[in-house]
This record gives sequence, structure tokens and C-alpha cells, in this order.
Amino acid sequence: MLPFSRVAIIGLGLIGSSVARAVRAAMPTVRLSGSDADPAVRERVRDLDLVDDVADGAGAAVVDADLVILCVPVGAMAAVAAEIAPELSPGTIISDVGSVKAQVLTDLTAALPGIAIVPAHPVAGTENSGPDAGFASLFRNRWCILTPPEDVDPVAVERVRAFWTALGSNVEVMEAKHHDIVLAVTSHLPHLIAYTIVATASDLEDVTSSEVIKYSAGGFRDFTRIAASDPTMWRDVFLTNKDAVLETLQRFSEDLSALQRAIRWNDGDTLHALFTRSRSVRRAIIDAGQDTATPDFGREHE
Amino acid sequence: MLPFSRVAIIGLGLIGSSVARAVRAAMPTVRLSGSDADPAVRERVRDLDLVDDVADGAGAAVVDADLVILCVPVGAMAAVAAEIAPELSPGTIISDVGSVKAQVLTDLTAALPGIAIVPAHPVAGTENSGPDAGFASLFRNRWCILTPPEDVDPVAVERVRAFWTALGSNVEVMEAKHHDIVLAVTSHLPHLIAYTIVATASDLEDVTSSEVIKYSAGGFRDFTRIAASDPTMWRDVFLTNKDAVLETLQRFSEDLSALQRAIRWNDGDTLHALFTRSRSVRRAIIDAGQDTATPDFGREHE
Repeated sequence: MLPFSRVAIIGLGLIGSSVARAVRAAMPTVRLSGSDADPAVRERVRDLDLVDDVADGAGAAVVDADLVILCVPVGAMAAVAAEIAPELSPGTIISDVGSVKAQVLTDLTAALPGIAIVPAHPVAGTENSGPDAGFASLFRNRWCILTPPEDVDPVAVERVRAFWTALGSNVEVMEAKHHDIVLAVTSHLPHLIAYTIVATASDLEDVTSSEVIKYSAGGFRDFTRIAASDPTMWRDVFLTNKDAVLETLQRFSEDLSALQRAIRWNDGDTLHALFTRSRSVRRAIIDAGQDTATPDFGREHE
Repeated sequence: MLPFSRVAIIGLGLIGSSVARAVRAAMPTVRLSGSDADPAVRERVRDLDLVDDVADGAGAAVVDADLVILCVPVGAMAAVAAEIAPELSPGTIISDVGSVKAQVLTDLTAALPGIAIVPAHPVAGTENSGPDAGFASLFRNRWCILTPPEDVDPVAVERVRAFWTALGSNVEVMEAKHHDIVLAVTSHLPHLIAYTIVATASDLEDVTSSEVIKYSAGGFRDFTRIAASDPTMWRDVFLTNKDAVLETLQRFSEDLSALQRAIRWNDGDTLHALFTRSRSVRRAIIDAGQDTATPDFGREHE
């Protein structure tokens, strides 16, 4: 028994196109429609045959859908919701894949009164963007966090849960505000720091860009992966999760200052104790199946 | 024509044991001796048969060697050099694999007057430690930086260059002080930041450790890899490259403050411009063969 029979995907980049591929793989009888604001993306999705119907506008794509998933940058959610509002059928459930949940829930609720809204965040992705970058197994063994408002129909939540479970995800439900604090630490702050260090390294007078690139295997290259993520998506994340990001960043800066002081005062014991503690976190992430245990992320050594 | 016929390796952890394996693979007729301060490591190296002779002390290991490579934490270089000094044969060349070069060069020069010293830094490694973690191909297609003092015999430099080339590395020569500035950016600062963010994430009141681990695929897990590196090695790196690390860290903090300000004042254009610039650095690292182009570092997606 499928949770939905007609699914519309608005936004067909890395995540939207992966959802399309995963639905095709896991629920091949589901009728898929989709749209994207970029005509070149729509064209490419047609060529790749990722959905059954590619509509030129978001409104046309959602007609008759029983699940609509918004896969657009979080800053675009309000406008897309307003665009599809007149075309929604009664009983349609609206979900999304945004990395920020409180602001998205507010925006969708305001634009879509009376519609069941079950926001979702699949914690999965790669540094690549666009419909060619997606793949069906992206969500397998990854967490998908649902942040339904208190007054939504519990049946709607269960159907969205069943949908993500069918795509291979482990589903967790939490409050939108708590989600935003957790992800500020596990995702937003790491991206902000990665973007910053890449910029810092690019701006040095004494070290050339070519040297930064040549000797990046010393650690720097690990940071550049997430710093290659989609700029528009990430701009919107930081602006819509401002409070949690700034609070987390402040804590990070304090901790960094403490290490800076330990280095300046030759306090090797403080450094050693902190470095020793970090190893166990890595071990726990591997044990939880959220990363590979092979050294160097399993990068090939010839 | 081999550059050396009897090589001694002092310190048989990840790097030392990888050098041993790489020498065995590339130059099987070379006679290898080695030692390690830890009796358990010596025992393990005997069991793994990584070198021809495992000596109980560093002094005994270097007798008759024409190349001695010190693979110990940079803070231990001076003591090890003093220990081997009385046992060195005339004409022996001393090298090392330390991540900091100016301090090591000073320490070795003081402890070993009249001996040819050619410091080296293979920019390669993994997050794992110990003799079991090493492998022969670790240095392939990675850079090895030599930082010889001005007055050393050029023939000694060429022999060490030939040695690393035989192990598969690309060799570059630069001044020790410049090396330390370059590596402060491409390696030391990334490690310091990775250690810090893991600590920050572990100390939050509102987010449990289990949540940090579960949702680490959002970016955090990339940082934990290098934060699992050897604590003693990294303590010594920060204390012996203090000036360059503090200078680089100061620049990073300023850049981070600028981004913090842009978020606080909703300056999306500044964020977007900076995020767009970062992508090209990633591209350049992949083009230079210093990282894999497969998404997510080629982590397996089931």
C-alpha cells in the first residue's frame, strides 16, 4: 500500500532529482510530476526522463498531486507556496526538503491556510548541484527529520514518514525550533567555517593559490568539499536560521580563542587533552553508520 | 642505482611504517633497520616483519645506516637526535618527516654538528595511527617538501630527492620558514579548527551527543576525520609552529567575523559572493590530483 500515488516535486536540482529517482526506484507506480524555475533544468529533466510530466510552472505541476514536495532554496519557499496555492486539491499534503525548518513552517503556513503541512529535512547531500548530480540511493541509511506543526493531522505525518521510509531513510520527528539548533551545529556551522577557511587561504600574500592547492592533502582539502556546495541554498540557510547560527558561532569562537591562548602560552596539556577527546566522536559517527571507517574517507590510494 | 643502501627509520607509527613498506616495495634490496620508543610498537613491527632489524634503542638502529629518517613527533626530534649522535657513521644523511620544519632544522643542527641534514615533509597521511595503519602507497602522487639548510651538500639533497621520488612522491624544495607558513594554512589551521568544532559540538546543553552523531552527515562528519589524528603529534605541531599558526588563525578569525556580521545584517550578497568563490578552489584541487572528483569523497552510497 503506497502512501501517495501522485507526487509533485517543485525544484529539480540535486535533492529534487534524487527524490524523483528514488521514487521511481522504490515506488515505480507513483505518477511523478515536476517543475523548476530554470528552463534549462526543465529541459534537462525531460532529456533524463526523471518524471512523467514536466510542467513549465509550479502551479501546473501540482494539479491532482496528493503529495507536493518543495525542493527549492528556503528563501524561495514563500513565493513558490503562493504560486501553487490556487492549484492545490483538497487533501493534498505539502512537504519540503529545506535545511531550515522554523522559518519554512511559518512561510508555508501563512501561504497555505487549511492545507496539511509536514515539513521534512533529509540530512543527505553531496557537494554537487543540479539534476545530473542526483542519484536514487542518496537517502539510504540517512536520517530524515519531520517537523510537523502541533495541529496537523497525525495521519498526514504517518504518510510522509512512510514515504521517506520507502526511500530508505530513517525518520525522526522533532520540533522545528529544535531541529534548527541541532542542524546549526551539525551542518550550518561546518559549512560556514569551511567557506571561511577557503576564503582565508585564498587571500594570503605570502602563500600562493598554487601552493594552497598543491599541499591541500595536509587537511585543507577536506574542508573544500562542503565549501563547494550551492551558494544560493547556503545563503538562504544562514539568513533564515540566523539566531541559532550566530549563537553556535559565538560558542565556536570562544572555544577557538581558548585554544589560541593555549598555543600562545605553550599549554601542551590543554591541547593534548582536547585532541584526545575528539577521537571518540569520530568513532561514534562510524559506529552509527554515518561515515565510512576506511582511512581518508576511502579515497583511493594508487 | 639506489640513492641509499642502508636506511634506518626511527619511529614506526603511521608514517614510519609506511616509509618501511614503501621502501620494501620500491627498493627491495635496501637493508632496513628501525626502532620505536614504545616496546609494544617494536613487538608489532617484528610480527609484521616491516624492517630487517628492529633495535631496542634508536642508537643501535642507526649504526651503519647511510640514511636515517626520524619519524617521531616534532617535539621529540631534539632528544632522538642527541640519542643517535654518538652512533652515526661519517657520511650518514639525516632526514625526518615532521610537519614543522624551522624548529626541527634548528633542533637537528644543534644536536648533530657536522652531519648532513635534509629535512623532509611528505604531505600525506590518514587519521589513523600506529604501525598497523601504514601502507606502501601512502606517498604516491603526494608532495614531499624538502627544506635543506643553505650550507648542506647539494648531493645529499639530490639523494633524498631520489629517495622520495622512488616512493612515488613529487618533490619540492623550499625554505623551512616558508614551508611553515604554507602548511599553517593548508594543514595546521584546518586541524585546529576541526578539533575545535568537535569540542564545541560536544559541549552544547541543548543538543545531545547522540543528535550530533546522528545528524553528522549534514557536514560535521567531514571535520571529524582530521580531528581523529594523533594528539601528541598535533600538540607538538602547534607548539613548534606557534607564530605562523597564530598569524593564520588571526586572519581566519577576522574573516569569520566578517561573515558573522553579514549574517547578522542580512547581507545576502556578501554571503553569496564568498560562497561562489569557494567552488573554484575545490575544482582546482581536484584538477591538481590532490583529491577525488567523485561526490562525497567517493563515500559508498548503498
